[in-house]
Amino acid sequence: MAVEEGRSARKRSAIMEAATTLFLRKGYQGTNLDEVAAQATVSKQTVYKNFDDKQRLFSDIVLGITERAGDRFQAMTLALQDTDDLEKDLTEFARDYVALVVQPQALRLRRLVIGESGRFPELARTYYERAPDRAIAALASCLRRLAERGLLRVDDPQLAASHLAFLILSIPLDRAMFYGDDARFSATDLERFADEGVRVFLAAYGRS
Amino acid sequence: MAVEEGRSARKRSAIMEAATTLFLRKGYQGTNLDEVAAQATVSKQTVYKNFDDKQRLFSDIVLGITERAGDRFQAMTLALQDTDDLEKDLTEFARDYVALVVQPQALRLRRLVIGESGRFPELARTYYERAPDRAIAALASCLRRLAERGLLRVDDPQLAASHLAFLILSIPLDRAMFYGDDARFSATDLERFADEGVRVFLAAYGRS
Repeated sequence: MAVEEGRSARKRSAIMEAATTLFLRKGYQGTNLDEVAAQATVSKQTVYKNFDDKQRLFSDIVLGITERAGDRFQAMTLALQDTDDLEKDLTEFARDYVALVVQPQALRLRRLVIGESGRFPELARTYYERAPDRAIAALASCLRRLAERGLLRVDDPQLAASHLAFLILSIPLDRAMFYGDDARFSATDLERFADEGVRVFLAAYGRS
Repeated sequence: MAVEEGRSARKRSAIMEAATTLFLRKGYQGTNLDEVAAQATVSKQTVYKNFDDKQRLFSDIVLGITERAGDRFQAMTLALQDTDDLEKDLTEFARDYVALVVQPQALRLRRLVIGESGRFPELARTYYERAPDRAIAALASCLRRLAERGLLRVDDPQLAASHLAFLILSIPLDRAMFYGDDARFSATDLERFADEGVRVFLAAYGRS
């Protein structure tokens, strides 16, 4: 029985992996379950037994990716709120944040969800709640803590978190939505976006 | 002959109008030229005579809409650079800017272009150059002038323009990409995004 369960789990994860590759490369409409089954080397019946239909498979993939990124981001905000050197650690945080968001898989997923938001409004909402909204909530809670510790002046943590996030991310993120995989940024550019975003944020929300 | 030209121009504009409505409602793939012809009450041959194919029609529409919005935005930046009361006029400018960008037609167009960027990379690039890039360039030139007049401290006008634009726009724009026409914002919310974005910008780039 344990062997059988292990095989099932392996098949499920092979299907998820194959489908992730195909959805991100060919879009939702361009992907069909026959191809997913072939690439995962399972039968089409096995795909259906595990995921009901293409929409369910797509939705499980989107939510899996956003959850892993969200967990990582939350850990970053928890580390930041205990900082002893705000400017230095906020700059480090900003550099890690931009690096997390411009990963090709994350960008492709974001474009795909926006592109399919007309057909799958529920999925787009769920993505928004679990990815951008969850990130802003975690960051807001971190900024509130930093304000309580006397390191920042923040009246509205939610708004301050949005300002910080968009100051750091918007330049590369906006460009990547239109240029796709060709929107390459050098490490130097990304660090500059992070550093300058933090500079503007601290000018408005810093204590000194 | 003049009568004939007038009829042609009217037909062309009827096609553009019908196609704009259909593309923005049904997406690129969901729209076909038979429907465009029927809604414009012209023959399908007339559609092809004017636009070669669906891709050309789509591209002409996208570029027409972005050009009109771009012209209007450029006029706003030219007015701002002669301000006698920066904080007041920058706040007015920010409120007008956010109102321009959250128009349903502009948001639908942006979603559509992002969604089709895999299939039409050229169109997405052209859109990006003529819409966001052109806006940032116009704003950068305005901020440079304001710095020359001693009203702002700006080392890198391009970066400062991106910071200002994203501080003002990102909250509603990001949400609208995922929530579609359901991402409604009250006038009060939009003014607050504009006002707070300007506050943060002036803290970092203002003279006082």
